[in-house]
Amino acid sequence: MPNVRDIFITEVALRDGSHAIAHQYTVEQVLKVAKALNDAGVPYIEVTHGDGLAGSSLQYGLSRTNEMELIEAAVSVADQAKIAVLTLPGIGTIKELKEAAKLGAKMARVATHVTEADVAPQHIHAAKELGMETVGFLMMSHMAEAGKLVEQAKLMESYGADTVYVVDSAGALLPEQVRERIRALKLHVGINIGFHGHNNLSLAMANSLVAIEEGATRIDGSVRCLGAGAGNTQTEVMVAVLDRMGIKTGVDVYKMMDLAEEIVAPILKTPQEITRDGLVLGYAGVYSSFALHAKRAAAKFGIDSRDILIELGKRKVVGGQEDMIVDVAAELAKSKSQVNVR
Amino acid sequence: MPNVRDIFITEVALRDGSHAIAHQYTVEQVLKVAKALNDAGVPYIEVTHGDGLAGSSLQYGLSRTNEMELIEAAVSVADQAKIAVLTLPGIGTIKELKEAAKLGAKMARVATHVTEADVAPQHIHAAKELGMETVGFLMMSHMAEAGKLVEQAKLMESYGADTVYVVDSAGALLPEQVRERIRALKLHVGINIGFHGHNNLSLAMANSLVAIEEGATRIDGSVRCLGAGAGNTQTEVMVAVLDRMGIKTGVDVYKMMDLAEEIVAPILKTPQEITRDGLVLGYAGVYSSFALHAKRAAAKFGIDSRDILIELGKRKVVGGQEDMIVDVAAELAKSKSQVNVR
Repeated sequence: MPNVRDIFITEVALRDGSHAIAHQYTVEQVLKVAKALNDAGVPYIEVTHGDGLAGSSLQYGLSRTNEMELIEAAVSVADQAKIAVLTLPGIGTIKELKEAAKLGAKMARVATHVTEADVAPQHIHAAKELGMETVGFLMMSHMAEAGKLVEQAKLMESYGADTVYVVDSAGALLPEQVRERIRALKLHVGINIGFHGHNNLSLAMANSLVAIEEGATRIDGSVRCLGAGAGNTQTEVMVAVLDRMGIKTGVDVYKMMDLAEEIVAPILKTPQEITRDGLVLGYAGVYSSFALHAKRAAAKFGIDSRDILIELGKRKVVGGQEDMIVDVAAELAKSKSQVNVR
Repeated sequence: MPNVRDIFITEVALRDGSHAIAHQYTVEQVLKVAKALNDAGVPYIEVTHGDGLAGSSLQYGLSRTNEMELIEAAVSVADQAKIAVLTLPGIGTIKELKEAAKLGAKMARVATHVTEADVAPQHIHAAKELGMETVGFLMMSHMAEAGKLVEQAKLMESYGADTVYVVDSAGALLPEQVRERIRALKLHVGINIGFHGHNNLSLAMANSLVAIEEGATRIDGSVRCLGAGAGNTQTEVMVAVLDRMGIKTGVDVYKMMDLAEEIVAPILKTPQEITRDGLVLGYAGVYSSFALHAKRAAAKFGIDSRDILIELGKRKVVGGQEDMIVDVAAELAKSKSQVNVR
């Protein structure tokens, strides 16, 4: 079966899904999940802290188990699948990349903000030297127009990435926006194109199908939606949908359904659903880390935190600019009071 | 706001959503939900047993509260929205339709299997005489090709229906199949066209957007996905997505988000998600009532119940033909044993 794949799925339940369980994976859980995914024919399984190598910290959430132990566990049961790791330059260093490669990880996904590909070359070069397959992972892709995205993807290509991903971190892209972006990449880059969706607007599956239609061949999924925010494209459902469409993933539909129900679902304490907070992030197109700051600022200025988030989205405020949240809140409160006076 | 709607949403959490809570709605819950929906600007709110008027029974599940009390409650708080009722001829009779109209219901949705529109005329006529707006609701629409669907929709039109709905009861339609069906209806019928999606394949939102693109102007949604199987298109998310696309629903995005989180979510004991059973139904395209029968037959013949459901889907077996399930199971077991012998 692995020889006839139209689409190569990377399963992210053991990385992005780590957010959904506050990074509490045990070795035993990873052994079971990775083995079942491997046996179902999934070609790539990502295993890392939710925020990538070395993400375990007070700021991002402490892992229950050292991620290197989890990577080692996954490698030990994956006789077909390749184990992938995610790394964000600035959080993860070459040192952890080497350690992961030594343990048997075969793919490195180097993630940067969509306009900051230029922080990736060292990590991509190092991964290549370690013999790993490499992916440039352009996060928050909704914040860049197609032209900018092409420029950044070409940088990833120039560093030696084998694949470049459009990553809809906030679940904010509409299908036509995905179409435009993937189409532009297909025209202008020569490497594989991938798509990573989040379900905040209930469009993860729709967007993945549009990406495939436009030529993406690498698609991320997460069993039972396990992922940050509203979760990711549900892998077992995607495999079934693609099978119905005659698109080959090389993944066994029944085995995926069974592992989702019997192995992954029991791990998740509360099913993933689209809550108000998740919806607001997708609607506004902002980082989840802004939500709490916006709520505090909203309370201080007596306005709706959603208005702040939407304004931050419009201004394309990025991580590290959290001080702008209070400024925006103050401005909104001022313009609101002026409207009321009129 | 109600004067500038491009799309008219019918909220079904108090009807289809009734399945998700085993028909246990109380008057108090309906008062709160209907009032909040009305205040958010939702134009139509459907209130009936999950299987339509008079659905309360041992077979379909007993309602905790008489649906007429629930309809009356919803009418009492809906000073803008119209209250709709669903009726399946054969379960619901003209008598209950009259009673609902007398209580103030203003829309009757008359539901038939996609190939059986000809059981609808009496109910549609009666509803028209009662001064109600009428909808022909073609269930299991994935089981009819576009041509057949047009024929049945034209019957609904000839009976006086103001709107005809493509109803994806099993959540089995792929976006291109929705496109083909809505496009054909748009070409051949003169009345409003609607779409009712289920999320078994995680495509409810995608399919609703395609339906709108092809000219549907009536779309069903359910707050927090409350509905049979994997649930319906999530209303508060759809309202946000359409707002992002510049399509006017006349519904307040923030109010919908708030009522979903604060009023509806607490009613649901377990969040709606796409479980194995729901996924299998969408993948096979069969009635949910077949699932248990198929499991029993599968156990008897030592085969996988999914193989039975998929075969039933291929043969377009409909409700009432449950005796075919054992036949199909026997055939599959036989052909399987022959394969094993070879």
